[in-house]
Amino acid sequence: MKGFRKRFSQPGSSPGQLVAARGGARESRIRLMHYTSEHLEERDVGSVEDVLAFVGSPGVLWIDLSGISDVAPLESLGGALDLHSLALEDVLNTGQRPKVDDYEDHAFVVLKQLRFRHGHLEAEQVSLFFSESFVLTVQESSLDDWEPVRQRIRAGRGRIRQGGTDYLAYALVDSVIDSSFPLLEEYGDRIEELQRILLEQPDQAVLESIHQINRELILVRRAAWPHREVASALERSESGLVKRETRVYLRDCYDHTVQILDILESYRDLGRGLMDLYLSTVSNRMNEVMKVLTVMASIFIPLTFLAGIYGMNFDPDASPMNMPELRWAWGYPVFWLAILMLGGGMIVFFRRKNWW
Amino acid sequence: MKGFRKRFSQPGSSPGQLVAARGGARESRIRLMHYTSEHLEERDVGSVEDVLAFVGSPGVLWIDLSGISDVAPLESLGGALDLHSLALEDVLNTGQRPKVDDYEDHAFVVLKQLRFRHGHLEAEQVSLFFSESFVLTVQESSLDDWEPVRQRIRAGRGRIRQGGTDYLAYALVDSVIDSSFPLLEEYGDRIEELQRILLEQPDQAVLESIHQINRELILVRRAAWPHREVASALERSESGLVKRETRVYLRDCYDHTVQILDILESYRDLGRGLMDLYLSTVSNRMNEVMKVLTVMASIFIPLTFLAGIYGMNFDPDASPMNMPELRWAWGYPVFWLAILMLGGGMIVFFRRKNWW
Amino acid sequence: MKGFRKRFSQPGSSPGQLVAARGGARESRIRLMHYTSEHLEERDVGSVEDVLAFVGSPGVLWIDLSGISDVAPLESLGGALDLHSLALEDVLNTGQRPKVDDYEDHAFVVLKQLRFRHGHLEAEQVSLFFSESFVLTVQESSLDDWEPVRQRIRAGRGRIRQGGTDYLAYALVDSVIDSSFPLLEEYGDRIEELQRILLEQPDQAVLESIHQINRELILVRRAAWPHREVASALERSESGLVKRETRVYLRDCYDHTVQILDILESYRDLGRGLMDLYLSTVSNRMNEVMKVLTVMASIFIPLTFLAGIYGMNFDPDASPMNMPELRWAWGYPVFWLAILMLGGGMIVFFRRKNWW
Amino acid sequence: MKGFRKRFSQPGSSPGQLVAARGGARESRIRLMHYTSEHLEERDVGSVEDVLAFVGSPGVLWIDLSGISDVAPLESLGGALDLHSLALEDVLNTGQRPKVDDYEDHAFVVLKQLRFRHGHLEAEQVSLFFSESFVLTVQESSLDDWEPVRQRIRAGRGRIRQGGTDYLAYALVDSVIDSSFPLLEEYGDRIEELQRILLEQPDQAVLESIHQINRELILVRRAAWPHREVASALERSESGLVKRETRVYLRDCYDHTVQILDILESYRDLGRGLMDLYLSTVSNRMNEVMKVLTVMASIFIPLTFLAGIYGMNFDPDASPMNMPELRWAWGYPVFWLAILMLGGGMIVFFRRKNWW
Amino acid sequence: MKGFRKRFSQPGSSPGQLVAARGGARESRIRLMHYTSEHLEERDVGSVEDVLAFVGSPGVLWIDLSGISDVAPLESLGGALDLHSLALEDVLNTGQRPKVDDYEDHAFVVLKQLRFRHGHLEAEQVSLFFSESFVLTVQESSLDDWEPVRQRIRAGRGRIRQGGTDYLAYALVDSVIDSSFPLLEEYGDRIEELQRILLEQPDQAVLESIHQINRELILVRRAAWPHREVASALERSESGLVKRETRVYLRDCYDHTVQILDILESYRDLGRGLMDLYLSTVSNRMNEVMKVLTVMASIFIPLTFLAGIYGMNFDPDASPMNMPELRWAWGYPVFWLAILMLGGGMIVFFRRKNWW
Repeated sequence: MKGFRKRFSQPGSSPGQLVAARGGARESRIRLMHYTSEHLEERDVGSVEDVLAFVGSPGVLWIDLSGISDVAPLESLGGALDLHSLALEDVLNTGQRPKVDDYEDHAFVVLKQLRFRHGHLEAEQVSLFFSESFVLTVQESSLDDWEPVRQRIRAGRGRIRQGGTDYLAYALVDSVIDSSFPLLEEYGDRIEELQRILLEQPDQAVLESIHQINRELILVRRAAWPHREVASALERSESGLVKRETRVYLRDCYDHTVQILDILESYRDLGRGLMDLYLSTVSNRMNEVMKVLTVMASIFIPLTFLAGIYGMNFDPDASPMNMPELRWAWGYPVFWLAILMLGGGMIVFFRRKNWW
Repeated sequence: MKGFRKRFSQPGSSPGQLVAARGGARESRIRLMHYTSEHLEERDVGSVEDVLAFVGSPGVLWIDLSGISDVAPLESLGGALDLHSLALEDVLNTGQRPKVDDYEDHAFVVLKQLRFRHGHLEAEQVSLFFSESFVLTVQESSLDDWEPVRQRIRAGRGRIRQGGTDYLAYALVDSVIDSSFPLLEEYGDRIEELQRILLEQPDQAVLESIHQINRELILVRRAAWPHREVASALERSESGLVKRETRVYLRDCYDHTVQILDILESYRDLGRGLMDLYLSTVSNRMNEVMKVLTVMASIFIPLTFLAGIYGMNFDPDASPMNMPELRWAWGYPVFWLAILMLGGGMIVFFRRKNWW
Repeated sequence: MKGFRKRFSQPGSSPGQLVAARGGARESRIRLMHYTSEHLEERDVGSVEDVLAFVGSPGVLWIDLSGISDVAPLESLGGALDLHSLALEDVLNTGQRPKVDDYEDHAFVVLKQLRFRHGHLEAEQVSLFFSESFVLTVQESSLDDWEPVRQRIRAGRGRIRQGGTDYLAYALVDSVIDSSFPLLEEYGDRIEELQRILLEQPDQAVLESIHQINRELILVRRAAWPHREVASALERSESGLVKRETRVYLRDCYDHTVQILDILESYRDLGRGLMDLYLSTVSNRMNEVMKVLTVMASIFIPLTFLAGIYGMNFDPDASPMNMPELRWAWGYPVFWLAILMLGGGMIVFFRRKNWW
Repeated sequence: MKGFRKRFSQPGSSPGQLVAARGGARESRIRLMHYTSEHLEERDVGSVEDVLAFVGSPGVLWIDLSGISDVAPLESLGGALDLHSLALEDVLNTGQRPKVDDYEDHAFVVLKQLRFRHGHLEAEQVSLFFSESFVLTVQESSLDDWEPVRQRIRAGRGRIRQGGTDYLAYALVDSVIDSSFPLLEEYGDRIEELQRILLEQPDQAVLESIHQINRELILVRRAAWPHREVASALERSESGLVKRETRVYLRDCYDHTVQILDILESYRDLGRGLMDLYLSTVSNRMNEVMKVLTVMASIFIPLTFLAGIYGMNFDPDASPMNMPELRWAWGYPVFWLAILMLGGGMIVFFRRKNWW
Repeated sequence: MKGFRKRFSQPGSSPGQLVAARGGARESRIRLMHYTSEHLEERDVGSVEDVLAFVGSPGVLWIDLSGISDVAPLESLGGALDLHSLALEDVLNTGQRPKVDDYEDHAFVVLKQLRFRHGHLEAEQVSLFFSESFVLTVQESSLDDWEPVRQRIRAGRGRIRQGGTDYLAYALVDSVIDSSFPLLEEYGDRIEELQRILLEQPDQAVLESIHQINRELILVRRAAWPHREVASALERSESGLVKRETRVYLRDCYDHTVQILDILESYRDLGRGLMDLYLSTVSNRMNEVMKVLTVMASIFIPLTFLAGIYGMNFDPDASPMNMPELRWAWGYPVFWLAILMLGGGMIVFFRRKNWW
């Protein structure tokens, strides 16, 4: 249920209080990249003070904090960069719905990074602040999915080194959003596989797999719909933080969210269709089973009754009316004839009903 | 059904008439807090007159009335504070849909406090009036959920002592709304537990539990949707009662309502999914049961018939055609051979059909 | 199906033609109230001419016509009060969807009065015209539900005698709309009762009751949604007929329609939930029945087969291989031992499967 | 499936090409009415040229063409009256969705005339062009439903002879739309009848009838929703073709479409409810059947086993342990006692379970 | 699942990178048409350079590229015609949702060509760029569906040779969109056929066919909804690319998309209705099977028990109470009488229950 939960402050408590998250990465790590189109500096820093040295110098500063089990680094970064306390509280209360909040000189973006771990879907909250001069990202865990973006910065090709903080923010948001594509590819494979198995062997395991897929697609959906709003809000943002050149890329990013939703809703329809197909297939099979039982029982129960009749011990000596058949010369063959005709008639009857 | 009901005035009766509610706290209690950023006075008052002494003095006055089985205190407070009679009627006709009504110099807010009692969900109507100088809250029962807010006022930390009536109103509304978070956490646990049990042992008790959760989620939903409208209406309120500084907190409160709805709708999807899973699992199990019955009956009914045949008493002495098998030397062993081959053939047949 | 039907003019016929309704009250009755804040005159009038004497005199004139099986009174009233012929046609073509039509100097309101009769829901169309000086109401039947409003006028308390025709119209509309509250209360009781019975004894009668409730809730819904539109349209009416003081009451009336819908939609969800619960419970019970059958048959059918074996008449004298067991000294006890072990083994097996 | 189909031009072909419809009336017939408030001329014309003589003369000209298996008349009318080729193509490609298209000096309306034929629903496309001076209607078949409108014109009463082409167009549209009322009345009767039968005898025929009704309601719905748009578009039309006096009648017509949808959606809900009720009733009945089988089998199978025991032929002479019961003096009575007690115990057990 | 998939760039990779598609036509082919109202030139060109010779000369230039397994031709065309790199990326990442993107001097349209291949639905992405002077189309495969449009250009009749690039773009879009009509016709036939079979013989094959249709209709829907947006966006396009004369044709095209959706949604309703009908029919049949089994078993099991009684070997010599019936003169006839009465009574009982 992890992806369905949200951390929350105690009802009635003061807003903007920071409480450390349990779980997530044990130790927090601060990775820092500072670049202009000409030079690039990249390092792991030990303390928040090391970060502050970079703040204000020209170029783009990307501060990436992973691990939020300790409040202190976030709190001091928040203070130094003048971030709003309600936003900082949202960073720690993971399980937020993806959203964009505009503050006076910075924007705050919450996203959900989806990935498979041990065969199950996992959703991690990713928080992102960006102003004119810096981008601050906070990841719950240390399972960093941004290495490709770092590579692009290091390689220095493409627009990323020329762009400002808004382009970097776009690149990161786009990377998180696009991570749904391989996920959906995987779900597509699973649905296809399940459908194939279902038609051959509709057992309890298939049912549980269908249920699991439907469950996880609910989770993907909970990330995908607000991601669309996020991409749209960034594209149309009226704060001066997003430059005109970046908007065309954000529109592309928005298109991706629409495509993800489009595929997702189809898969949800398919998932529901599988559930219906399952129920109908099971009913169908039960019907087949019932027919076999009915045919077998209906043929042999009357025959057994007849055999039971002639196994009775009424004494033929007591009266000529007592089971005279037993002493007829043709008794046994006639009995068999009757049995065969009765059974054959039944078979014909059931054939006509298409039960055989 | 308590949470699904609404008290109502007799159709055709005059609007604005106050009729005492049955049930709820027996005795009404008036708790009063009066504070500025410097000082704080807190007391339980016996009569409405004691309250009036505070009205008009500078600072924030919070009057909390719990218990509405007696109309008198509410009526005289309403008169003294000049509250609208339609609003007062709504306070007593509990089961209202949460809403905000703007009157000329005060706003009227209805909310639903949700909580678990004896394992079941309970919804209590909470009414809140606020003007420039006072906040009047009315609770149905004496199960006060606002102690944390009182603590914050007493402690005097955070913004609450600096803020005006609008900030106090926000803090109370936020407290009521946030009470859904622990509730939903509990439902998350229950759903997970039910799913686990269902796959192991899908009995009637599980079915009833799923039904109860789905029922209660309908109730939570009936509070959650209008809560969102309330938070949104307060944030955008055009009366001068809500100050600009408070709006950012109300936006945060609105975000919470959106998150609550988001989780809630997922849980409703999960709840419906459990119902489907239940039905499919039961069908599946019935199928298994049917297969066992069919296999057992189909194997043994023909064999019993055969045994019945050779239990017949046709007289072999009457004619050589009458059951000569009974006197063959190899009759019995051949019979067993036939039985075993027939039974074995059946088993092979059912194995092929995957019913065994 | 009464509430689901609508009377209609022949397709292609001229609009605005008045055709008498069949059914409804046999005789039409005209009740008349004329009042100002000081005096009140109330009478039953025999002919439309008696009404016209009051038209134009200062104060509020309420003309209540019940019974529409005779077109004449309505036609002459329509002519005298200058009402639009399309509106008059709608009065007679009962089964209209509730609505408000604004004509130049009068408004036309259609509503649905809901009530229980003989245990079933009944919907009666109520039509209401109001101008600056008169209110004309037309009821299909003589089951008058407006006695409480008449009492308020007679008592002369509250605002009703001070208000104009718009307040009277509000009071009548409010009375019709509020009549859903006791209805919903009744449905709430029934749903609760059905749920209780269903879990104990899910028989065909319960199923029919659930179906009936779901059916009737569709009918309530067909009245409730357009009632909301009616209340909203009256509150926001731009004709000068509705005065500013009355609007706050109409907003209250609108709130009631929203609450009715809110409760109604919850009940519809509950009703659908009951249908699902019913189906699952029946499946469940069938599963229990099947298990008993399967266990009984699976245990005793093989045992009966064994007993059948030793009831065969193969002649032990013909050969030593023919049923030598029958003559063994321990044959019978060993047979019982085998039977008990086989039966016991079965029971253990079914216990393990949790079918016993 | 007739009503669900649409004729279409070959994909990729040139727009506005006229291809004759197969089916429909064999021969086309042109009926012509030309009237002012004073005089009326009505005739069947043989060729399009005869029509042109009337075009341009004062008064209202109604040209009614039925049968579209021959393209020529439509093509020459289109040319003479200067109608848009895309509109003409739509006239022939029957199965269009009802709509209004405004061209510069004429409007083009597509409607669906619904009727029962041979117990099944049938939808016929009706096309209508109107300008300041003429109304051209095209019907697929010769099953003319506009005789009542013709009667009104001939009778000369009502507004129809005073009105212009817009009023005639209104009268025709209204007639087509209102034809759903008797249809829905019929469906109401059928649903009621089906429900009654279903509760008594839920067989396959009932199921097919429910399915057919649900199917046909889909078809009615496909006409009803766009009819609402048509009525609304005509009422609000901004071209000068629709005069102010006619709008109040179009509003009435719009009200009818809303009522039709209202009834229709209720019937669809009822239809779906019947499907659910059917499934539950069948499950219920199956449960009853199963209980009878289980009770019969569970009582008699063990008893038969016991009887089988004492039908065994273990030789009592071989050993005193071999079936000594057979020679006991009280053997047979004790056996019956045991049988009756066992059977009675079973009956008590099943009674307790409420299966008997 | 092909139609449900989308190619995507690696999450985190740079936007606008072109990666060759696997699958699709092996070799790419460039077909070129250049025409004015007077002359027409058509050829297959080997290299992109041959194309460039035509760019800029007056008239309409249609470049059709089929096959995208090689990136080079697209890349150089994109460079030469100055197309946006994000659009080119979308051309290759097939499985896009149909859409229109406006760039400064050209528009980019994505569509889905639907067709049946080997009895299954197939969706191919078609991309279309158009500016003032050229139309560039890119097809995934070589299964060209645009021959009819080419014929129209060659024939030179209709508006196509007079129109500009916008008219050609319209003609191509219209051709792709209209290809749904024959598809839906086919689905209509299949649904009708399935319904017929289902009522006669509801087996697993029917179930799978229903499931397949429902699946494929999801796919058609995924193309149809965005096609509507595409037609609407082109009709209302504010770039100067679409001329006023072409808009009326685009409105017609938009009407087609609405009709496609209209038919499609009906078919989806019918498809779901078939699934329900299937389940109900199977339940119904199972009920019939159960009744036969129950009647047979309930009649013969008690009779067999009775026969078993008189097959017991209690020794009549041991005591006069031991099975004296066996020696009665009328024993056997009385037994038969009892059997027949019991069996007959059962039959009467089951007839009454309507199970026979």
